Amino acid sequence: MSEPLTIIGSPLSPYVRKVLVCLELKGIPYRIDPIAPFVGNEEFSRLSPLRRIPVLLDGDLVLNDSTVICEYLQDRFPEVPLYPADAVRRAKARWLEEYADSQLGDVIVWRMFFQKGVRRFLFNEGTDEDVVRKAREEELPVALDYLEAQLPEQGWVFGELSIADISLAAFFRNAVFVRYQVDAGRWPRVAALLERAWALPAFRTLATYEDAMLRTPLPEQRAVLAAMGAPLTDTTYGNASPRYGLRRLA
Amino acid sequence: MSEPLTIIGSPLSPYVRKVLVCLELKGIPYRIDPIAPFVGNEEFSRLSPLRRIPVLLDGDLVLNDSTVICEYLQDRFPEVPLYPADAVRRAKARWLEEYADSQLGDVIVWRMFFQKGVRRFLFNEGTDEDVVRKAREEELPVALDYLEAQLPEQGWVFGELSIADISLAAFFRNAVFVRYQVDAGRWPRVAALLERAWALPAFRTLATYEDAMLRTPLPEQRAVLAAMGAPLTDTTYGNASPRYGLRRLA
Repeated sequence: MSEPLTIIGSPLSPYVRKVLVCLELKGIPYRIDPIAPFVGNEEFSRLSPLRRIPVLLDGDLVLNDSTVICEYLQDRFPEVPLYPADAVRRAKARWLEEYADSQLGDVIVWRMFFQKGVRRFLFNEGTDEDVVRKAREEELPVALDYLEAQLPEQGWVFGELSIADISLAAFFRNAVFVRYQVDAGRWPRVAALLERAWALPAFRTLATYEDAMLRTPLPEQRAVLAAMGAPLTDTTYGNASPRYGLRRLA
Repeated sequence: MSEPLTIIGSPLSPYVRKVLVCLELKGIPYRIDPIAPFVGNEEFSRLSPLRRIPVLLDGDLVLNDSTVICEYLQDRFPEVPLYPADAVRRAKARWLEEYADSQLGDVIVWRMFFQKGVRRFLFNEGTDEDVVRKAREEELPVALDYLEAQLPEQGWVFGELSIADISLAAFFRNAVFVRYQVDAGRWPRVAALLERAWALPAFRTLATYEDAMLRTPLPEQRAVLAAMGAPLTDTTYGNASPRYGLRRLA
């Protein structure tokens, strides 16, 4: 590998976080262009046809979709395996990743984080409190019941740390951002797994960036990350966008 | 392998079709429980927590999500490889699969097939013609422009037949169901790739089932498939549902 890999996308996205944790765990050098997808410029549209983050740049390769990127990192840098060796366990780990991407994405990202954070503080739109209440009180508990039944009492889901643990911990960070704590009395296995994962240096390092970004208006986030010594790209695929970031997220 | 694998899910779903084509190409014995997801019974909810199809049953293993299932089939039955051997090409193939699952799923399945077929003929609800027109005239052309730029003039996308070709051909079958033909003058590479894929025995075999199902009310589809000699399970995870299937789909 000659150049560090580039990840386009804000570390506040759980999809970006999943990829960054894999990079950290594998010890792969990388740089971040920490943009929110809605500020991406024309060139960003060319790199990401659905205008989603993250995007991976590896030399000439442009790769979209967090799941596809994580599989690529595993194929290209197999040294610290993040997928179970056994085919059945690997399949089950991929399913938990997909469950996080789609179901936790819908509930935690779109119905909680987006409503309480992005709509309210970035777009100056109101929060639909009914959507948020239903997500917190009905939909997320169903997901937690399902996950509780899948997880072990201790250790990682499939013995060694894998993409399953990483994905779950990445998504539940966005629940923390909107002050949702998993009830350890009701879902002890989920709560314990999240604590174990968040205690890893990879998650802890990223959490310092995330916490700083949450306190910082969008246009100033790059400068704040730079001041913290975060590994940033020299250039950005984001537009300067004065209409965003006028209020604080948290 | 002692028992044939079981696939729960109607062959009219492009997600089910993708898996069935992989099984056919790999020569893996399988049986289908050809249910639509909305007629699944209580046990189906246990097997598929998001009530999606397809579900794979392989002995004790229950596996959800077409992408996860196809990866599992590749890992467990590697003999006819359907993923490129090179890591970069494999990543690009996975991305095209994801593009089909998400973008073509949104446009072709939800805005065209669901509107013109499922809503109208199964639920006796009206078609929102504005949604369909926008999908046909604006959204699908954007996707076709993107795909045209990714595809080769001839042959398969990544040299050998792969999950990329299979996915694209699986999703565009549902466009055919609602009488959408890809304009070969405007998108010659896409049109030619689809014709090549649909000419494969795997797609042709499934097409005979699909065409028969489209002419058959939902409650009678299993009997029609059985009469055609389709490989069916002995039992079903579907409810008998007199409120569906009263009108014909095509």
